Amino acid sequence: MSDPRSVGAVRPQTMHFDTPLAFRSGAVLGAYDLMYETYGTLNAARSNAVLVCHALNASHHVAGYYADEPDKVGWWDNMIGPGKPLDTDKFFVIGVNNLGGCFGSTGPASIDPGTGKPYGSRFPVITVEDWVDTQARLADRLGIECFAAVMGGSLGAMQALQWAIAYPARIANAIAVAAAPKLSAQNIAFNDVARQAITTDPDFHGGDFYARNVAPRRGLRLARMIGHITYLSDDAMMVKFGRSLRSGEIHFHFGVDFEVESYLHHQGDKFSEYFDANTYLLITRALDYFDPAAGCGGDLTRALAPVRARFLVASFTSDWRFAPARSREIVKALLDNRADVCYAEIDAPHGHDAFLLDDARYHALVRAYFENVARDVGAAAP
Amino acid sequence: MSDPRSVGAVRPQTMHFDTPLAFRSGAVLGAYDLMYETYGTLNAARSNAVLVCHALNASHHVAGYYADEPDKVGWWDNMIGPGKPLDTDKFFVIGVNNLGGCFGSTGPASIDPGTGKPYGSRFPVITVEDWVDTQARLADRLGIECFAAVMGGSLGAMQALQWAIAYPARIANAIAVAAAPKLSAQNIAFNDVARQAITTDPDFHGGDFYARNVAPRRGLRLARMIGHITYLSDDAMMVKFGRSLRSGEIHFHFGVDFEVESYLHHQGDKFSEYFDANTYLLITRALDYFDPAAGCGGDLTRALAPVRARFLVASFTSDWRFAPARSREIVKALLDNRADVCYAEIDAPHGHDAFLLDDARYHALVRAYFENVARDVGAAAP
Repeated sequence: MSDPRSVGAVRPQTMHFDTPLAFRSGAVLGAYDLMYETYGTLNAARSNAVLVCHALNASHHVAGYYADEPDKVGWWDNMIGPGKPLDTDKFFVIGVNNLGGCFGSTGPASIDPGTGKPYGSRFPVITVEDWVDTQARLADRLGIECFAAVMGGSLGAMQALQWAIAYPARIANAIAVAAAPKLSAQNIAFNDVARQAITTDPDFHGGDFYARNVAPRRGLRLARMIGHITYLSDDAMMVKFGRSLRSGEIHFHFGVDFEVESYLHHQGDKFSEYFDANTYLLITRALDYFDPAAGCGGDLTRALAPVRARFLVASFTSDWRFAPARSREIVKALLDNRADVCYAEIDAPHGHDAFLLDDARYHALVRAYFENVARDVGAAAP
Repeated sequence: MSDPRSVGAVRPQTMHFDTPLAFRSGAVLGAYDLMYETYGTLNAARSNAVLVCHALNASHHVAGYYADEPDKVGWWDNMIGPGKPLDTDKFFVIGVNNLGGCFGSTGPASIDPGTGKPYGSRFPVITVEDWVDTQARLADRLGIECFAAVMGGSLGAMQALQWAIAYPARIANAIAVAAAPKLSAQNIAFNDVARQAITTDPDFHGGDFYARNVAPRRGLRLARMIGHITYLSDDAMMVKFGRSLRSGEIHFHFGVDFEVESYLHHQGDKFSEYFDANTYLLITRALDYFDPAAGCGGDLTRALAPVRARFLVASFTSDWRFAPARSREIVKALLDNRADVCYAEIDAPHGHDAFLLDDARYHALVRAYFENVARDVGAAAP
C-alpha cells in the first residue's frame, strides 16, 4: 500500500445507460449499468485516455486497491500506475467491467426490471463487437472522442482489435498482447468442455439457478481448472509443481497426491465461490464467436482495412493457447494494409499468463511504446 | 471382413488366476480373471510371442473382428495381421485387457466374491508395475518364457518399458511408441480434472454407484472430451474441424454451433455409455504414478540399468501430450546403459493419436524392426 508506484486507493463508479442496446444476436437490452474505474487525470485536450479491456475472469478493477479491502489489488497493477509502463502520471486510464459480467455491470445475475427476477438464461448472448459498442458509449459519456490507446491481453486484445476495426477514428493506438484474431478448433474445444461442465451440472437449472439458492459450482470449478491449465505452459507447470507430492508419498487413492492437484483444486474452489456461471458461459462464447475475418470471406487483411490506429502486438514464446503464430497473423494483415505496427515476440516461459506477469523485457517494451504515445498525444507529465 | 490382411474372426478367452496378487499399494486380490486374445501361432521354440499392451481406453481386442459383431474391429488392426507390420504369419500376438479394466478382466464392476457385490470403491488402486506382473503370470500360463517383443503406445509404452526393467530376461525387444518415462505436471493436471469431473458427479456415490443403477456419465463424458483434445494436435483439429459451423451460422446460444463441439459431444456420449468410471480413475492414476526413476533419486539412467532388451522408440512431431523430447529422455537413459536402441521421430500431423493411425513412414519403420526381430527369434514364416 505504501508502494509509491501504486495509483493508491481507488473507487469503482457506475454509469447507467437507458438508451436501448441492440446486440448482434438481435436481442435488445432496454437499460444497463457499467461499472468502471479511472486512474490519472484526463488532460484538457481529452487526448490522454487509455481504455484497458479485461479478459475472461477479470474486471474494471485494473489498478490500485480499495480502502476497505487493501489486499484487493487491481489485476494489472504491475503494468499501470505512476511511473509504471502505462504511466498514470501521463495517462487517464479506464477499466470497465464488461456487460454480462459479474462484478457490478449488468449481467445474468442482475435483476431484470421487466420481471423483477434475475436475467439468468434470458441475458442476451453477447459478442466482442457488442462490448466495444458499450465501451464507446461509456467513452461518449466520459467526453472522450478518441482514445490515446485501447489495450488488452487475450480476450482484451480482441477488444482492442475490434476497436480499431469498428471505431477507426476513435483509437490512436491499439496494444494487443497475447492475442489471436480468432479461436482455433482446439481453443473452442476447451471452451466447450468448460461450458458443458457448467450446463450439465445438476445445479445449473438451465441458467436459472439464482432463485433456487444454488449455483453450478462443481461445473464452474472444473471449467476454471481446465482454463488454468491452458493459461500455463507445460514447462512453467513443471518448474512450479513438477511431480512434487503434497505429503512426500503417494497414497494410492484418487484424492490429492500431487502439488499440482492441490493447486488446481484450490484455484477451482476459489473461483467457483465468486464467479457467476452464466457470465462464464457468455464470455467463453464471445471468445468463440469473435472472428472479424468471417464477414470478409476469411480474409483478415480485408477485415482490417478500416484500421487507422498504430499497433503494438506482443506475444510470448511459451504461450500455447494463443501462440505467437496467431499474433503474426494479425501483424501480417496489418502490414498488408500498410498499418503502422510494432511486433515483439517475447521469450517468456510462463505461457499465456505471461501477459499478466511482471516480465522485464515485456514491461520495458510497453513502457517504450507508451512513451511515444505520450509524446504524440501531448500527454507528457506537466 | 474380406480383408486378406485381417487376422479374421477372433474369440476372446478368459484365464482365471487364484494365486493371490499383492499390489504395490499393499492391497491383495485373492483371485481374478484376465481377458485376452491371441493371433497367429506360437512356434515350437515358443520364441515368437509378442505382447501388445493397451493404453487408456482400449482392450484385449487388438486385431480382427468378432463373428457376431463384424464391425467391432480391433483397435490396432492396421498394425497387426498377416503381412502387416506386426505380422501374424510370423508372430504369436497376445492382447490382454488389463486388470481393473471394464472389458472382461476383473475390475471395479466385477463381483467381489467376499461380499457378493461389485468391488466399486474397494477395487485396489493399481500401478503399471502391477499390470506387468499380471501379464507375466499370464505369460507363465501360456508357456511363454521370453517374449520376442512387448509393444505399446502411450500408456502401453510405459508397460513395455516396465517389462524391460522388471523382467529383463523375459523380453527380447521393447517397442515404445508415443512414450514418456513419466507424466509431466500438465499431464497430471489434465488427468486430475478428468477424475474430478467423475468424482464430483452426484451419480458417482464414492465409486459405489452400481447398486443404485446409475453411473457418473456426465463426469465420464467430460473426462473423455478433455482426453480427446489432448490426443489431437491443434493443427489436426484445425484441419479436421476448423471453425466450421454445424448449420452454417451461429445461433447465439450455448448449445452446438461448431463442428468440433458436435464431435466432442458425440465422443463423450458414446464413451460414457460403455466405459466404467472407476476404471477410468484407476487407469489415469496408474499413468500419474508411473515413474521408474523415482526409486532411483530421479535418475532414469539408473532406473534402466537392468534393461537387456533391444528398443525401438518412436515419437511423433505433433504429439504435445507426450512430445518427442519425452521419448528422447528414454533413449538417452538407454544409451547411457549401452542398450541397443533405435529411435525415430516421425513427422506426423495427428498428435498423440498418431500411434494408432496408418502412417506409412511409421508403419514401415515398425515393419522393418519386426523383420529383424523375426530373424533373431527364428520366427520367419515357414
